[in-house]
Amino acid sequence: MAVSYIVNQKSSECDARVGTLKTPHGEVETPVFMPVGTQATVKTMTPDELKELESEIILSNTYHLYLRPGSKLIKEAGGLHKFMNWDRPILTDSGGFQVFSLGNRRNITEQGVEFRSHIDGSKMFLSPEKAVEIQEDLGSDIMMVFDECPPYPADEIYVKKSLDRTLRWAKRCKDSQNHADKQALFGIVQGGMYPKLRKESALRTVELDFPGYAVGGLSVGEPKELMLEVLENTTPFLPEEKPRYLMGVGTADYLVEGVYRGIDMFDCVFPTRVARNGTAMTWTGKMTVRNASYKKDFSPIDKSCECYTCKNYSRAYIRHLVKTNEILGFRLITWHNLYFLVQLMKEIRQAIKNDNFKDWRESFYKSYQHN
Amino acid sequence: MAVSYIVNQKSSECDARVGTLKTPHGEVETPVFMPVGTQATVKTMTPDELKELESEIILSNTYHLYLRPGSKLIKEAGGLHKFMNWDRPILTDSGGFQVFSLGNRRNITEQGVEFRSHIDGSKMFLSPEKAVEIQEDLGSDIMMVFDECPPYPADEIYVKKSLDRTLRWAKRCKDSQNHADKQALFGIVQGGMYPKLRKESALRTVELDFPGYAVGGLSVGEPKELMLEVLENTTPFLPEEKPRYLMGVGTADYLVEGVYRGIDMFDCVFPTRVARNGTAMTWTGKMTVRNASYKKDFSPIDKSCECYTCKNYSRAYIRHLVKTNEILGFRLITWHNLYFLVQLMKEIRQAIKNDNFKDWRESFYKSYQHN
Repeated sequence: MAVSYIVNQKSSECDARVGTLKTPHGEVETPVFMPVGTQATVKTMTPDELKELESEIILSNTYHLYLRPGSKLIKEAGGLHKFMNWDRPILTDSGGFQVFSLGNRRNITEQGVEFRSHIDGSKMFLSPEKAVEIQEDLGSDIMMVFDECPPYPADEIYVKKSLDRTLRWAKRCKDSQNHADKQALFGIVQGGMYPKLRKESALRTVELDFPGYAVGGLSVGEPKELMLEVLENTTPFLPEEKPRYLMGVGTADYLVEGVYRGIDMFDCVFPTRVARNGTAMTWTGKMTVRNASYKKDFSPIDKSCECYTCKNYSRAYIRHLVKTNEILGFRLITWHNLYFLVQLMKEIRQAIKNDNFKDWRESFYKSYQHN
Repeated sequence: MAVSYIVNQKSSECDARVGTLKTPHGEVETPVFMPVGTQATVKTMTPDELKELESEIILSNTYHLYLRPGSKLIKEAGGLHKFMNWDRPILTDSGGFQVFSLGNRRNITEQGVEFRSHIDGSKMFLSPEKAVEIQEDLGSDIMMVFDECPPYPADEIYVKKSLDRTLRWAKRCKDSQNHADKQALFGIVQGGMYPKLRKESALRTVELDFPGYAVGGLSVGEPKELMLEVLENTTPFLPEEKPRYLMGVGTADYLVEGVYRGIDMFDCVFPTRVARNGTAMTWTGKMTVRNASYKKDFSPIDKSCECYTCKNYSRAYIRHLVKTNEILGFRLITWHNLYFLVQLMKEIRQAIKNDNFKDWRESFYKSYQHN
């Protein structure tokens, strides 16, 4: 087995747990947030900087790398780790989410998805077998099955059909995998916002027996309450001894709530994307650094933060950089945001170890404002 | 005196020399190349990275900082060094070159230059006194006088009038300076492409007695041969015991030729600007990393280079980053280009110390192609 998982400690108050994920490129303590390196780079950062702020695992995108520079080129380079100079674990998505987001530029059949590249409009094709082949070329530690992520809202009949197909595709992915000893393949639970379908998808995906399970199709525009309700109706049907990954979640409160409901892994472009728009993540919520109120504010983004940015630069300076579109500004906020999430997950893990996660969560919300 | 200069060694073959420039923020070995930090940041780089690649002094821009974030704000922050987290020497230009580049958006009178901001079109005014005031607010180690840089080509009568005014302005700058003990003010020689006027400008500027002298108005579009001829007709009229700064020069061959003719300091946006266009500077000349020929080239930009970029990343990877517009690509090439210039100046200084600069220069041109 390429990847193994051990639960080290469980909360006595909720489904939260601390665990260790072992991969061919090292161990990762969970719950963990994975920064997104869409195009073989976590935007603005070097791999060394990611290590300095203690990111343990990153995510990269099959769809984007397949288009540019091409997965065969990356294979020739010696794999994605070598290509991008990152020797820690990498999880790759399957490209499913991206091609389904292409709207009328794609055509779904049982065989797979025909689509036009968002770059040059050229015709391309992704299928369960192709998605696995690409991810094998990339050489990620964890691959994801090729799934369909239904939009929100979507009617029950469509979602049911879609999850049936996702299950058939999951089986095809598993059957086409060549190196289960080197790369793990995770299943993905779908089922839209329908608890009954979520349960069915979870049970049938687990039947296929994957070394880890993702919850997909959430955080796609639905209200937070609905998302949490659906999550609560999904994780109980996933085996305790396997890692659980909630796809596309990356704001502080969602992470806390995900962990509370038994999630071990998260990814999201949020921290890196908002950074390039001048927004910092803090213990009190989002902070729009470009606001006029910070013009002459010579204090750091967060006085209590120990990150490179907060130790060396003021809000006024970072605001100036953002306003003048200087790359360093985007770098400094990205650094801070990723550091913040690493610290958040550290605190969460510690609270679970101390078995006081519920108290910790309550005190977290005393200062945190979702804004 | 804020700044002092000692010539440590002179070439016996040409006007090249090695010296030490002492400033309130540390010593700099010359000849030196100064990376440009237009808007209080050397584009894409942190100050720590500049230190890692051994940049000893940077340049920043009065015009740009006056507009954004404003020199009073920087003064309030504790000065430019503190604002941008750079504790080594800073030279600031006077804004003259920038406002004259505004074309019909500026109006020159004896008093100064009225102009419209390139950002919001608002009316602004720079004069010798104002340029010194701004630079005193910034707190740079070396300030430059407010000069007029005539375009190329320009007729002799215009250039003569312009240099007369630049001299009157230089005097006004000197008279309005408040802290000669903390900040040095350098004079600027103009005179267009007319050797006679260059000589006159040099002699009359030296009469005003500055702690250092710049050669302005070169590298403004004239042929290389003409530039070198004019330079040869300028430096002989500058005192040997004062530092000489050639403004706006930053390609390898121009640096070599400038040093050959007795120049100690250089600045240029070239290495950082072309990096963001995907062009690397090497010992054999420019290298366009985005070229298709590097698509599957897994070797570094320069196999012999010891910089962070060349030790860790391939041409194929950097090309991918540049093609996909990823910030890391621009960072990696900028790092390499600045490192290259630091190494070039190191080699030049060593050759002068060994008194074999002429041989070194010859062997340099054996591999280097100006392209």
